[in-house]
Amino acid sequence: MSSERGDKTHRRGGRRPGATTTREAILEAARRQFAQRGYDRASLRVIAADAGVDQKLILHFFGTKQGLFIAAVGLPLDPGTIPTLLTGDPDTIGQRLARVVVELFERPDYSERLIGVVRAAASEPELARMLREFLTRTLVQPAAALLAEDEAELRVTLAHSQVIGLIWNRYILAIEPLASMSPEALASALAPTFQRYLRGPLR
Amino acid sequence: MSSERGDKTHRRGGRRPGATTTREAILEAARRQFAQRGYDRASLRVIAADAGVDQKLILHFFGTKQGLFIAAVGLPLDPGTIPTLLTGDPDTIGQRLARVVVELFERPDYSERLIGVVRAAASEPELARMLREFLTRTLVQPAAALLAEDEAELRVTLAHSQVIGLIWNRYILAIEPLASMSPEALASALAPTFQRYLRGPLR
Repeated sequence: MSSERGDKTHRRGGRRPGATTTREAILEAARRQFAQRGYDRASLRVIAADAGVDQKLILHFFGTKQGLFIAAVGLPLDPGTIPTLLTGDPDTIGQRLARVVVELFERPDYSERLIGVVRAAASEPELARMLREFLTRTLVQPAAALLAEDEAELRVTLAHSQVIGLIWNRYILAIEPLASMSPEALASALAPTFQRYLRGPLR
Repeated sequence: MSSERGDKTHRRGGRRPGATTTREAILEAARRQFAQRGYDRASLRVIAADAGVDQKLILHFFGTKQGLFIAAVGLPLDPGTIPTLLTGDPDTIGQRLARVVVELFERPDYSERLIGVVRAAASEPELARMLREFLTRTLVQPAAALLAEDEAELRVTLAHSQVIGLIWNRYILAIEPLASMSPEALASALAPTFQRYLRGPLR
């Protein structure tokens, strides 16, 4: 393993590209590594070696493996917002989640990237696997821990399924009248679904 | 327009292929026509002419334009089940829909075709448009008419968004624990969502 690193580092070690080029080189190496090994088994060390940079530079640019994945696949998700959502008043969790989701989707830059990822994952099983591992680690498991309910992981995946279905019907299929419903009306139609999935009875 | 029909009929009029070949020729012509003009504007007359058959033969094989579309794109939906679902006891509509959806998805032949259509629609905007028109005509509008509720079409598209999200998270993304949840538990988790979308308060 160390010889692999050594070889690749040496191979490109003599180059001193500018910051933009370096960042791009890391993203390209990351996409290759994530595609080959999935999210869980992808190695920052291998990515660094492949890009011809020090591993510390990856952390400098992207913070964490998760940050690198988000940048590499263009996933518009900031898991930092999850604690804020889940640790407030338990009785209004559905309302808050519905409002955040609907408002985010109304931002064209956000919804375009999200639709891009969903489209790509639908046709590329490898990306679907990465996305599954990534969502499990950075959304399902942390959110479930904060929820502190029975069957917490199931609750998160149920709520997430309604979010994905919304992306599909409102943006990709664009089926009416859902496609042109106002964000406010949509948030209030979705809120009780999220509320029950996250805090209500499931059986 | 009649000359177009005449030309194409004459062009292939001399051939007498067997039933399987004829059926395939109709399906190929249908896929071309649906892709070019969408579901609403596709013409059975043009499809018949392109396949070199009489329009009556299409109806003999596929019943209706809708039946032809289902066969052409491989959509595993029998709109005949909708009235049975929607016209029973209004208080158990969510339960019945959840059970039917979950049981259908457990049939591998059914879920594989459904996943195929969802995957394809994600990457082919033309298929997404066909699917939107088809679902609007054969699912949303008839189901809304049977529901006889305010905002009935919106209700149907909301319920449908949860169905699509389920296909996504359980089958395409295969995210746990949703992916391996028992059909019974899944149906009871989904039933209240369908019940409220179809019959409950939306605001």
